[in-house]
Amino acid sequence: MFDTRLHAAQQAVGAALAQALTRLPEGPLRDAMGYAAQGGKRLRAFLVLESAALFGIPAAQAMPAAAAVEALHAYSLVHDDLPAMDDDDLRRGQPTVHRKWDEATAILAGDALQTLAFELCAEPVLGPAERRIALVAALAQASGAAGMVHGQMLDIAAETAPVALTLAEITRLQAGKTGALISFAAEAGAILAGTDRAPLAAYAQALGLAFQIADDILDVEGSEEAAGKRLHKDAEAGKATFVSLLGLEGAKARAAALATAAEAALAPYGERAETLRETARFVISRDR
Amino acid sequence: MFDTRLHAAQQAVGAALAQALTRLPEGPLRDAMGYAAQGGKRLRAFLVLESAALFGIPAAQAMPAAAAVEALHAYSLVHDDLPAMDDDDLRRGQPTVHRKWDEATAILAGDALQTLAFELCAEPVLGPAERRIALVAALAQASGAAGMVHGQMLDIAAETAPVALTLAEITRLQAGKTGALISFAAEAGAILAGTDRAPLAAYAQALGLAFQIADDILDVEGSEEAAGKRLHKDAEAGKATFVSLLGLEGAKARAAALATAAEAALAPYGERAETLRETARFVISRDR
Repeated sequence: MFDTRLHAAQQAVGAALAQALTRLPEGPLRDAMGYAAQGGKRLRAFLVLESAALFGIPAAQAMPAAAAVEALHAYSLVHDDLPAMDDDDLRRGQPTVHRKWDEATAILAGDALQTLAFELCAEPVLGPAERRIALVAALAQASGAAGMVHGQMLDIAAETAPVALTLAEITRLQAGKTGALISFAAEAGAILAGTDRAPLAAYAQALGLAFQIADDILDVEGSEEAAGKRLHKDAEAGKATFVSLLGLEGAKARAAALATAAEAALAPYGERAETLRETARFVISRDR
Repeated sequence: MFDTRLHAAQQAVGAALAQALTRLPEGPLRDAMGYAAQGGKRLRAFLVLESAALFGIPAAQAMPAAAAVEALHAYSLVHDDLPAMDDDDLRRGQPTVHRKWDEATAILAGDALQTLAFELCAEPVLGPAERRIALVAALAQASGAAGMVHGQMLDIAAETAPVALTLAEITRLQAGKTGALISFAAEAGAILAGTDRAPLAAYAQALGLAFQIADDILDVEGSEEAAGKRLHKDAEAGKATFVSLLGLEGAKARAAALATAAEAALAPYGERAETLRETARFVISRDR
């Protein structure tokens, strides 16, 4: 059931992004955007659709928000992979955008994917203007200089810092770098429904941290083939991670505890939130 | 009168941007954003405020939209100056962001300035949610892969093209690269007022092209000291410009004719549009 829903969401959001791109002028910019927005787990889109479903909002109505969060995520990956940032050649098993095209195209494709994300949040099908503008404000908060980009900046600073980060510092960094957008995605349903976001916010906070700890575990234990990207980067770079700070078993225990906390936060929604609970378990058991 | 209004707008939008930045976490990211958003003519902000004034919308109400268009413009300059793009060391008489900090900071500061622009469009003071979401949609249209970024991509392609562009191709390129955002700015007042944008759209189309032709003339005749950036780049790079295609006198005549056309497009607004008319004359007579 969970796999079926996740797979359906992956297909649908891929189609929605492809459809949004057909409205743009043809050429290498659009090609690079489409390439960058392909594949991935679509976890963030899934969270948008499942949190919307919690309030009876059909997938077709919430879809532009799901596509928006994936466009935003894709932009962050394209820029993060640039030579001046993480300098990665491989992403989702394929050459990164600046390797397949060039740096200028990667910078511009990332820029335009960010723009597309906000454009998608304005789509009338999402509902009343009040809800759509709240979505824009929340996405900007989550992804800008107080959210995701702030986390990326802290991450870059950590690479050249003389001493490794503490657990509190890493937690703060990841709350921005990956947590903020995951929180936006999980709260999107409540935003679209115009209702209290608090339970989903608590769920997302635990989920986002569990996600990142699982990422650090995958960086140590995972297969590069399944992950589709270079692994063991953090250990090679001597960067502090949840695994280096908590140990492998400690990290696994912490991730499991956070997934349980995420599930518990959904209590107000009862049975209706079962897929979101399964998502928490999925996040710590995935192989990529 | 014109100078006084322009100066007041420059001061006010600078203060609004500075105020928006104080809400962000301290650090080099915020510093670089503030640095990039300083100075400049603030022509786009001025167009927002003056088009809003046309419909009786006070400057204090329209200010977040004026700040948004300047944040968007600043992001485009920071990314445009990057080594992989135009590779410029000087902007507005100061070192470019990647020279003063580094490339990673410049990429992230540009990214976060774009985000800030959309966040500012969601500010409640701008008016009803319907108007604010229309502003978001218009800004995304103007600045994304069908607008400004599309123009930048065409510009980069032109640099490596075997044959110089034709007048029609340059006009299309500039309509995206600089014209789209100028059009957004000039139409913003009508968007905020929820009224017909057509006269301002016609004004902005002529104004944007006049602006770019004046830029090409400045690139040949201007002083680097006044401009605060490297000039004569296009001639050195063998790129086609309005001057290379029309000749210096031909370009001046075309810019003057466009300014006159821009003024004429404001006829429906009568005397109320006098400052916007002066703006058209200013655009072709400026020295930077």
